[in-house]
This record gives sequence, C-alpha cells and structure tokens, in this order.
Amino acid sequence: MSQEGNGAGPSLMRQEIGQQPEALRATIGALLPRREEVGRLAADTKAVLFIARGTSDNAAVYGSYLIQAHAGRLASLASPSIATTYKARIDLTGVLAVGLSQSGRTEEIVETLTWAGSCGARTLAITNGGSASPLAEAAEMALVTEAGTEQAVPATKTFTTALAALAVLALGLGAPLDPGELLAAPDAIEELLASPADLDPIVDGLAKVAGVVVSGRGMAYAAALELAIKLKEACYLHAMGLSYADLLHGPIAVVDAQTPAIVLAADSGPTLAGTVDLARRVTGAGASAFGIGGGQALATACSAWLPGPPLPEWLAPIGLIVPGQLLTEALARKLGINPDHPRGLSKVTQTD
Amino acid sequence: MSQEGNGAGPSLMRQEIGQQPEALRATIGALLPRREEVGRLAADTKAVLFIARGTSDNAAVYGSYLIQAHAGRLASLASPSIATTYKARIDLTGVLAVGLSQSGRTEEIVETLTWAGSCGARTLAITNGGSASPLAEAAEMALVTEAGTEQAVPATKTFTTALAALAVLALGLGAPLDPGELLAAPDAIEELLASPADLDPIVDGLAKVAGVVVSGRGMAYAAALELAIKLKEACYLHAMGLSYADLLHGPIAVVDAQTPAIVLAADSGPTLAGTVDLARRVTGAGASAFGIGGGQALATACSAWLPGPPLPEWLAPIGLIVPGQLLTEALARKLGINPDHPRGLSKVTQTD
Repeated sequence: MSQEGNGAGPSLMRQEIGQQPEALRATIGALLPRREEVGRLAADTKAVLFIARGTSDNAAVYGSYLIQAHAGRLASLASPSIATTYKARIDLTGVLAVGLSQSGRTEEIVETLTWAGSCGARTLAITNGGSASPLAEAAEMALVTEAGTEQAVPATKTFTTALAALAVLALGLGAPLDPGELLAAPDAIEELLASPADLDPIVDGLAKVAGVVVSGRGMAYAAALELAIKLKEACYLHAMGLSYADLLHGPIAVVDAQTPAIVLAADSGPTLAGTVDLARRVTGAGASAFGIGGGQALATACSAWLPGPPLPEWLAPIGLIVPGQLLTEALARKLGINPDHPRGLSKVTQTD
Repeated sequence: MSQEGNGAGPSLMRQEIGQQPEALRATIGALLPRREEVGRLAADTKAVLFIARGTSDNAAVYGSYLIQAHAGRLASLASPSIATTYKARIDLTGVLAVGLSQSGRTEEIVETLTWAGSCGARTLAITNGGSASPLAEAAEMALVTEAGTEQAVPATKTFTTALAALAVLALGLGAPLDPGELLAAPDAIEELLASPADLDPIVDGLAKVAGVVVSGRGMAYAAALELAIKLKEACYLHAMGLSYADLLHGPIAVVDAQTPAIVLAADSGPTLAGTVDLARRVTGAGASAFGIGGGQALATACSAWLPGPPLPEWLAPIGLIVPGQLLTEALARKLGINPDHPRGLSKVTQTD
C-alpha cells in the first residue's frame, strides 16, 4: 500500500466521503417512517442521555443541542465510567438512554446502555452494525443506519448517517421541524461534492503549523469537535476543539500566527453573528481564520473559506463536516500520511 | 512589570497557589455546616445540571463524576446557548441547577441559571463573588467560597475552593463519604507545598514541545481538563485535554516524540490501573509520559513524575491540580511569559 494512499486511485476515505449522499438517502428512507415508534418508546420520558465515545460522542453533541433547542427536553452525554468502572446505581426513570456505536460492538457502550436500562431508563440504539449487533440487541429499539461497510479508519459516512438518525430521533420526540428538509439534505451534499471548492489555500496553511483551534457554536459545535478529532487522528495535528464561548473564556491565548483557527457555522441561525465576530477577533489578533459554512458573512471575515451545503440550521452539521472531511483527507496526503490507516488506531476500539 | 513576572519576587499566581490551604480551610469551615440545607433544597430533585464556563466547567466535571459515582443522581453540564441563544423551553422539574462562576458576574451564567429556575429547576450558586453577587442573588441558595481576592488571571484558589464546595454539595445530596476526609484535605495540600518536588524535568520537557495531551479518568479527568486549560492560557501550549477512553478511541495517534502526554490519577481507586496502562502505552510508543499522582504505580510507568497529596479518590482532584498549577507557573516563566497576565485574557470574561 502506498504511503500516500493514492498510488492506486483515490483513498478509501475519499471514496467513502463521496458515498455519503447515497448512504444518507438510504438511512433517511429507512428511519424517517419510524419516528412515531420512537415517540412511543419515549412517551414517559422527559430527558435524553446519550452514551457514546469518540466520533459517536460528537454525534451525540449534535443530538443534545438539537433535542434541547427544538424538542423541549434536557439532553446530556453520559460518562460511561460511572457505569463500567464506578458501578454506580442512579435513578434513571424518566430518561431515554441512547447508545451510539458505529460498529455496535464497543463493549463499554453496550455495557453502559444495559446498565442504563437496569437503572430504569428506556433504551434506544443508533448503530451502523445492523440489528443483530450487540448494541442493537441490548436496546428496546434500534435505529440502524445504512452507511454500508466503512473501511477507512477515520469515520465519515457512519458519522453523517448517525447525525441523520439523530434528526429522526428529534422529530420522533416532537420537534416542530420539517421532515422534508431532512429528505432534501442528501441532494445538497451531493451538489457540494460535485463542484468542490479549492482546498489548497487551507491545506497549505494547515500543513505549515503544528496546532489549530476548531470552533463553532450551538449546532455547529458538534461539527467542530468532529473536525478536530479527524485532524488529530488522520493528520496528527494538535487540534483543539473548543466551543465559541469556552474559547473566549481562556484559551484564545493559544491562537497566534502559528496557530490558526477553523470556525464552522450554519448559513443562518442565532449563532452565526457570534461566529463571524470570533473570526474577526482571530484575524485581528494576527492569526489566520479558516471558515467553513456561514455564507458570505463568515467568508468575508476569514482568511480563507469553504462553503457548506445550503442546509437549514438544524441540519447544518450533516453538511458542514463534509468540507472538513475533504480537508482532512487532502491534508493527510500532503503530509505523507495514508488517511485510511493512521498510526495507533484500529477500526473498533475497546476501552474497559 | 517584568516580562517574567518575577523581577520583584514570586508571581501573584505562585503566591495564590500557596494560599490554597488557608482558602480551603475557610471555605470548608463555612460550607460544611450547610450541607443539610443543601439536602433540603434538593429534596424533590433527582438530577443535577451544572451551568458553567471555562475553569468553572472543569470544576463542574468533578461535581458531575462525584455526584453520579457517589450520590445516586444523574448529573450533567448545561449548554448555556440553549438558554441564551436558542431561548428554548425545557421541562426542568426535578432538576437541581447549579451555577458556578468565580466572579459571580458572568452574565451568561446568571442568565442561564435564571432560565433554569423559570423552567422548574431548584437553583444553587457556587461562587467566590460573595452573597451579593448577581449569581448568588439569582439563586435560591448560594455556597460562597472563601478564596479571597484572586489577582492572577489563571484561576488557582478559586478553582480548588469551588471543588471543595462541590464536595459539600455531594455530601448534602447524601453521598456516603467521610466529611472528616474533606476537613483534612487542606493539611495534605499544605504539606505538599512545604516540600515541593523538583519540577525541572517536566518543565524542561514541556518547554521543548508545541503540544501535549493531558489525560485522566473518572474523578481525575476534571483535574486533567483544568491542567490543559492552564497550559493553554498561561503557556500558549497546544494542550489537548482528553479522557482516557476518548484518547484510546482515536487521538492516541497525536502522541509522538514531539507530543508527550501528562497523565493524572488518584493514589487509589478504580481508575488507577487503566491510567498506569495508558502511561505504559505512551512510553511504549516512544513518547514521554509525565505523571501526576497515582503513587508509585504511576511513577514507575512514567518518564518523569510528581506526587499528588495523599487524598482519598473522591477528593483527589483538589490535590492533583496543585502540582499542575506549580508546573504551569514555572513553565510560563521559563518561556518568558508573565503567568499573571497572559495575552488575550481578562479576569472576568463575558460571552453573549
């Protein structure tokens, strides 16, 4: 296998990025009709607890913002070690526990979801591992995503299809949002992939630095965290995923001429103006700000910029991560890293 | 003012690190008698929602682990933008909302705590800003810490006293833990400060690199996150705070000969063995592992090591951060940064 992963054509990661419109169509087609079933499962609950790790944790952050902003319920992320290491007993009646695992085989997540059920929670699985996977078997109901087999180690289509499943969850919990907008999202992403923007200015900028801050607010925060993990795992970059507010509350000190910021935003919505201000503050401090999404408002505030697909704010992360995935794959190759097989990683990670 | 901040004696930050035993004694003395009052406030609640930013967010992570592991309640961190930006309405009956702000004047936190009360939550403030601060005024009850005035921008004594207030909160919620151990913690920290370990091997190691991973599991995770924010804000280091499990789930790729890991652990407890394994994995990959706490088990697995004060696991973060604060202050001075006034930061940060 070539070091760059492109000796014999595009990397697996690049191919899988391109498969996302199809994977999303299949997933949304399969899951959207089940939203009333989700609603029945959650009927006696009033809070949501996500159980996840790594990339799935970033998906859960999206689910948490979406459900709190639009479905009137408290939502949060579990600390699996409370179940697996501390063996604590917690009253989880009235809670819908949602376990997320791409493979459906991460034992820690299966164990924690089972624990949640034993503590009184209703249980739902979101997985690409199929309805016979241990996580799906452990849950009362499973939303199985239809991403197909993912071969590159950095997750791409399993991440965006998990986001689509979370959008279905929010609709099932009664969020007054338009399912038609979800159905239209794959087309918007397909159009973006068909006429990709020039990645070189940002790839060249990131190839020269050791670290980068990745930031976004509200819904876009989940895409920022996911891009940070991608840049860490596939490009070995010191990528620090920080919310807009947390960045202002301290570590803005870390941004300098050698440490640019990547800022992500939906094309509209209540967090766009603050994100534009953040980009201006970064460039005002003499650092580079690279924008993804946020329309012309963010574009003009940034040193370089990539458009996101034109999606409504509640679905924006499904699209915003796509230019980030393309950026990660291109940067890895430029750095001489095979994006399909970064060092130190395997496809299913077990943590005790 | 000298660039190193030590032209006229120790930095303010170093002085305030040394004031922690006294500040903790005053805080614990004032707050421990109020634990039954906390219990009455929380009588009809079964979950805790922390509302915080920055360093206070790291304190809230400690509170979240402590309450879930030992007080039988779900605990999580709020996303303030759900209240302040999305203006969402969420059913928070049965929730105790706890707002944390050192100054008690961060508007976003005051607004979000007020919002939580209007959504049905009971409300508690933890602040060093006094009982007349806006946050204390907005809450039904305030646990006011007694750290005194903190002048250096990097928070030290206001952080550890907030942790002590959270230990009181856990006791008030019925955690079957020994208040005598909390009362004894200031002495253990005082002894550590009286005979400090040699910081130079780790300071020299960190002065040569651009980035570092800071990790810990369970209770120690909060101290790891806090050390990461300290190193970012006062040393401009690319410090990535990651939980043990999240580190294994991907970004272990980022650790290399130029990117060491700092690992923190309590001297005992269920997460120690995993942390020792993580340190071995880091050194096995050819990178440096710097340990804080974890006793001889962690010391022998690390390239260099600092002891923490001998505290029981449930109180370990109050002690583990102290060697980290000393490390941050010494590294800042070695790098020619005034630790009292890092660039880009002011003492009270307002975010919209």
